[in-house]
Amino acid sequence: MNPPTMPLADPTFRHRQVDAMLTVRRSDGTPCAGAEVVVEQTRHAFPFGNIGFDFVALANDEKPGAGRENVFGGADPASAERLVDLWLDLFNTATLPFYWSGFEPVRAHPDTQRLLTAATWFRDRGVSLKGHPLVWHTLAPDWLRDLPDEDVEELLRARIRREVGAFSGLVGAWDAINEAVIMPVFENEEQHNAVTRLCRRHGRIAMVRLAFEEARRAAPEVTLVLNDFDMSTAYECLIEGVLEAGIEPDAIGLQSHMHQGYWGEEKTLAIIERFARYGLPLHFTETTLLSGELMPPDIEDLNDYQVPSWPSTPEGEARQADEIVRHYRTLLSHPSVQAVNYWGITDQGSWLGAPVGLVRADGSTKPAYDAIRGLIKDEWWVPATALRTGVDGRVALRGWAGEYTISGLGDTRSFELSPGTTEVEVTLTA
Amino acid sequence: MNPPTMPLADPTFRHRQVDAMLTVRRSDGTPCAGAEVVVEQTRHAFPFGNIGFDFVALANDEKPGAGRENVFGGADPASAERLVDLWLDLFNTATLPFYWSGFEPVRAHPDTQRLLTAATWFRDRGVSLKGHPLVWHTLAPDWLRDLPDEDVEELLRARIRREVGAFSGLVGAWDAINEAVIMPVFENEEQHNAVTRLCRRHGRIAMVRLAFEEARRAAPEVTLVLNDFDMSTAYECLIEGVLEAGIEPDAIGLQSHMHQGYWGEEKTLAIIERFARYGLPLHFTETTLLSGELMPPDIEDLNDYQVPSWPSTPEGEARQADEIVRHYRTLLSHPSVQAVNYWGITDQGSWLGAPVGLVRADGSTKPAYDAIRGLIKDEWWVPATALRTGVDGRVALRGWAGEYTISGLGDTRSFELSPGTTEVEVTLTA
Repeated sequence: MNPPTMPLADPTFRHRQVDAMLTVRRSDGTPCAGAEVVVEQTRHAFPFGNIGFDFVALANDEKPGAGRENVFGGADPASAERLVDLWLDLFNTATLPFYWSGFEPVRAHPDTQRLLTAATWFRDRGVSLKGHPLVWHTLAPDWLRDLPDEDVEELLRARIRREVGAFSGLVGAWDAINEAVIMPVFENEEQHNAVTRLCRRHGRIAMVRLAFEEARRAAPEVTLVLNDFDMSTAYECLIEGVLEAGIEPDAIGLQSHMHQGYWGEEKTLAIIERFARYGLPLHFTETTLLSGELMPPDIEDLNDYQVPSWPSTPEGEARQADEIVRHYRTLLSHPSVQAVNYWGITDQGSWLGAPVGLVRADGSTKPAYDAIRGLIKDEWWVPATALRTGVDGRVALRGWAGEYTISGLGDTRSFELSPGTTEVEVTLTA
Repeated sequence: MNPPTMPLADPTFRHRQVDAMLTVRRSDGTPCAGAEVVVEQTRHAFPFGNIGFDFVALANDEKPGAGRENVFGGADPASAERLVDLWLDLFNTATLPFYWSGFEPVRAHPDTQRLLTAATWFRDRGVSLKGHPLVWHTLAPDWLRDLPDEDVEELLRARIRREVGAFSGLVGAWDAINEAVIMPVFENEEQHNAVTRLCRRHGRIAMVRLAFEEARRAAPEVTLVLNDFDMSTAYECLIEGVLEAGIEPDAIGLQSHMHQGYWGEEKTLAIIERFARYGLPLHFTETTLLSGELMPPDIEDLNDYQVPSWPSTPEGEARQADEIVRHYRTLLSHPSVQAVNYWGITDQGSWLGAPVGLVRADGSTKPAYDAIRGLIKDEWWVPATALRTGVDGRVALRGWAGEYTISGLGDTRSFELSPGTTEVEVTLTA
């Protein structure tokens, strides 16, 4: 299970950077010697994600109270409008909601068109997309409950093929199955749902196989994530069973809703190292840090904590700003971490009403917004930088993996720095 | 994973009883009509077990301080002598200690002969035997630590073949692997042991496969148990991975050291039902109930709780007597439970010095001894019972699965009532 060499954390982030020689040529192919060029990063290769729930209604031009609010909340269209630039300035990957009961409230009437519109809206703004989740016991539709297991399984398989197929080319990654560890023994509901029933009957690994099998068949090129909130040995045991069964997740998803307090560097790294040993990329799929009072530690299912109001406080906002920077530094310091997804841009309509956003309900930014921006768009970013090419038209470049533009001779071209890139050639037309 | 019909608990214990027609014949084969016979149970088919650690030294005629005390303690030979009858009156199955570091303190010098003597001592007294454990990270020998993984694996495999092979015909059941859930992440030790290292490298399921593969090959007829203290979903996930991997445990072992308090009927049944759904027999392998102060609930690894003295108290003994009866009633009420092993006959030299015994350190019996005896040898026992055969020499019999004698016409014969037995024939020679 341990890869021969376990990747280790490196707080200098060198593993996130690329060293390349840039050769600049004129349209006639001759080296552009001794020229002043300006290189500037335009996008991170690393997926800095957030949920895109808030923009589904906006992208669909829905009026407030159109009755199509997301089952997991989100900002109203008017507020969302004011969040667009803030969101796009920080994030390059959006998670879209495919909760079955919200996506297909009435059997055979899926919300495909509305989500396609939202996905296209993001795509047109240069944002990559992830779908969440394909298989989950929570938010399984009520109309499923009374059907026999055989029908539930066939409908579940068909739903996976339908969603993955319809969004192929738009949605590049999916949480194939969510919270399989608790799935067959989940009891925090008034009536048992049909997915838990099916999982209890066939076992967790059979459910994981079902999810990956159908999704892989529907779109072999997409990234399929095994996602869970359970960071205990239970998840290790599940993963080891899944791998022994020959199922091949593209990444291990680790939720990190920290409503009960920031984990701290030590615990976070310990978790990363425990799950990194399977040699698969780690995706931090659901990260939240509060800017208000913490949830009491004795709450087991976060959904059980219901409060009338959960304000963001000045002390909480200072703490959140400090913790989000420490958390992202810790995550990116480990080479196994290949995606980080924050769970909420705004407090408005947030899960449980918790002050998890980087923006307050009134639309003003919290200190955490500027703090995380300081990493993503400043410390980990190559601003417009003037360089002079040598006599051979070459110049050395070190940058964060991502997309760049180079300007000179009155022309501007774009190029990519990918991990492993050593040589880049661009031609500028005078 | 769920068998089509899940067995349910039945507090009347009917599933433990056998209804059979007994036909009594004379030596000439004619039915023994209208005869008065006396039927009496002599042994339970159900394995009522306890550890036999205390009797290893006694069986080997060792003097106190012979320096061969068991790594997990036990009574000195003189005290053990006084415990023999108390032990044999209640229990029909003994667990013998095969902790690797104690069994082979010096490489290539295993304690085989000493344990063979102990096993034979029990066998000669009508006691079935179980070995504990073949693979475990705790009490792995120190001399293993600095060897390369390849050697550790080969030595581990050879050790399994050696022990299972040498005791074949004597030891009918083994804990093939112990505590695999925590095995690869076990850290509560000064120096990491070699078994944890190997498990971390190859994964839990590979280690479980190794244990069952070697033990099965060495003695195909023995019962092989997957044993753990972890009653959480982690163990479920491990079991599901093991089953999906095609490994076939004969039973799922559930430890139940209740140093921090009796589980109660509800929790116990919930655990039984969660693990019964895999359709395998459940063995309660390590049951303890205290007759003194409880261990604080915040202790995670019971081994961390070290106290100078841990007395048995009158209140504690009353509580223990009540709880052991409730616990055994709960366990035997569920058809999936097919073995119960208590962990300690005496407080003398008990694990952690805890007052878990049914007998005090001074050799006197606690109320729990009489209480559990009231179940095993009274409520769940068929005492000498006079019956009169009909004209056809037949008489109906209901009894607990086990061994019986029948006396009449000045002769005594033995017979068995096994689950499913409907007809029994005995011939009495006048």
